[in-house]
Amino acid sequence: MHFTYFMPAKILFGRDCVAENASLLRPFGKKALVVTGKSSAKNGALSDVLSALEANGQKACVFDKVVANPTLACVQAGAEEARRTGADFVVGIGGGSALDAAKAVAALAYEPRADKDVFSGGWTGALPVAAVPTTAGTGSEVTQYAVLTDDFRRTKTSISSPAFFPGIAFLDGKYTAGLDKKITADTAADALSHAVEGMFTVKSTPVSDLAALESIRILFRIFPKIEAGSLADGDREELLYASMLAGTVIAQSGTTAVHAMGYPLTYYKGTPHGEANGVLLGEMLALCEERLPERTERILRAAGTKDVAAFKGALSRLLRGHARYEKSDLERWAEEASENPKLAGVTYRPDKEDILRMYLGSDILAEGANPER
Amino acid sequence: MHFTYFMPAKILFGRDCVAENASLLRPFGKKALVVTGKSSAKNGALSDVLSALEANGQKACVFDKVVANPTLACVQAGAEEARRTGADFVVGIGGGSALDAAKAVAALAYEPRADKDVFSGGWTGALPVAAVPTTAGTGSEVTQYAVLTDDFRRTKTSISSPAFFPGIAFLDGKYTAGLDKKITADTAADALSHAVEGMFTVKSTPVSDLAALESIRILFRIFPKIEAGSLADGDREELLYASMLAGTVIAQSGTTAVHAMGYPLTYYKGTPHGEANGVLLGEMLALCEERLPERTERILRAAGTKDVAAFKGALSRLLRGHARYEKSDLERWAEEASENPKLAGVTYRPDKEDILRMYLGSDILAEGANPER
Repeated sequence: MHFTYFMPAKILFGRDCVAENASLLRPFGKKALVVTGKSSAKNGALSDVLSALEANGQKACVFDKVVANPTLACVQAGAEEARRTGADFVVGIGGGSALDAAKAVAALAYEPRADKDVFSGGWTGALPVAAVPTTAGTGSEVTQYAVLTDDFRRTKTSISSPAFFPGIAFLDGKYTAGLDKKITADTAADALSHAVEGMFTVKSTPVSDLAALESIRILFRIFPKIEAGSLADGDREELLYASMLAGTVIAQSGTTAVHAMGYPLTYYKGTPHGEANGVLLGEMLALCEERLPERTERILRAAGTKDVAAFKGALSRLLRGHARYEKSDLERWAEEASENPKLAGVTYRPDKEDILRMYLGSDILAEGANPER
Repeated sequence: MHFTYFMPAKILFGRDCVAENASLLRPFGKKALVVTGKSSAKNGALSDVLSALEANGQKACVFDKVVANPTLACVQAGAEEARRTGADFVVGIGGGSALDAAKAVAALAYEPRADKDVFSGGWTGALPVAAVPTTAGTGSEVTQYAVLTDDFRRTKTSISSPAFFPGIAFLDGKYTAGLDKKITADTAADALSHAVEGMFTVKSTPVSDLAALESIRILFRIFPKIEAGSLADGDREELLYASMLAGTVIAQSGTTAVHAMGYPLTYYKGTPHGEANGVLLGEMLALCEERLPERTERILRAAGTKDVAAFKGALSRLLRGHARYEKSDLERWAEEASENPKLAGVTYRPDKEDILRMYLGSDILAEGANPER
């Protein structure tokens, strides 16, 4: 046994956790910049956070211009706003895009950098961040990563630092109650990909494997309810919990091949991040089964699926109606994904051919684009 | 679902983890006070730590006067030494006594207090602490507690603060390799009591339950090897891992009735802490079975024991030859333990009669002291 484990975020989980634990934000400073998207404001989270800050006598400005797959322009604008308003800390509210943007804003407000230097590492600190997820998928509330659109490398690239861990994560299932079926399914698939990918890296740990398997167990139990559109409040909570667990997994392991392969689908075609991972995950597991059968078996057992085909089938049903792509695109993306640094440390060691095989084996080819031709 | 989870210590686990990660101690400061006991120096941990500090160019003084169940006099002397030598941080090396003493020294060096004020709470900070456990039981390396002998209340009492969490926990199984069978068994029983007790408090969380059940699973798998004296290095590592997991459990939940009941055995009779908990744990589970059968069942399943009697039997074998007590003492201790604040928040709600029943039901009466008479 040889591992490192670190996840310093304080987790407050449960209904009304923001209001109940507002005072925990007091040590963060006098002025907050609340970073969110336009629609994240509609589920009650923003008003809860603003009330909490007001109760603490803390000033707040709202930067609600976060876009999906946040760009450098977006987070630079947020950082500029943080500096202009003299923010001592950042509260991120939203899905992965908003939370990741919040972390990047906190980093760039603390340490201004030109665009070309954002992805070069070596961050020395960041403003303190509190995170309020409003989707159940990202896990960003318990990780040290901020994933940004990277136009230099034409993909999404994460920046990371131990300083980016949110100090507090407030998880209240009610903020996810209004999510539609598509977003719920996509984000759940994202959480699943975190749990599964996290078990196939050299940085996986016994502690994170425990969290990963529990997350997989919960997600597969709830997938049919997502498909049926019959999620109860308790199911929403469980999804949020499973997503958080999977976040603690990637906080140790990082994400790997599936994320590297999924990013082009998002970067070039705008496919939602969770869908992109979810449609590729089954083929990854098929490859893992050949090379690391024992680990794969543990995952299948946790999922309650008898084999990889059943695992893939469950994801297909969850993501029914997903996007499809031209073979020529997949071939090009296989080149690109195989260059992604995320592939270092993947225990099943996929090469370029493996990546193309996973793309083509996934049921994502456009009609008529038969891989046999 | 409604819970708080927080465990900010960075865990470095594995052979030679101190040497491999020495540089992580650099940000702790220029001068260390190493807090340990006389015998903790003999397993290699002290020399590894001193080498690591030297490699970092950090000065070190050694305070090796920690006694079992550390007294206020002991930790006050350590704090005085920390101040005298201008220590910026503390490295604790040893079993629970040494690690808890290290935290108390770090607290009192940061914020000097008279003996009478040590147990009154409200700690504002502490010097940073790194922890190197040399037994597999305490879990102190991942908790915010320091348990001290409390002559005011004639028991052991913990002081606690989020500031007491070690910043780094170095867990290397080789430091536990030389432990004799008795200490190994006692400390393993302590770890088990953390895992089991932690599942019966209002502060238990789904995350800590996951860790608790895994810890129980591992401990019961290894108990027979402890009894047989046939522990391999890998088993020692697993014990250390299980103990750490159980530490993360009580970091959320605290300890409860078994610890409250065990402390008098240690305070008045010098019974090792782990033995004291271990001999009482079975009767606690019997009481839990009446009141919270579902939770009890999960524990029994993780332990692989078919019922509470089998669970008790396994502990009896592990702790064979344990101390015995007079009935009159147990009656007095039941009074004392029932006043312990640890009983607040115990989900199976033991009262004084329950506590006496647990004492008398445990197989710890002196020969001839028949509870029926």
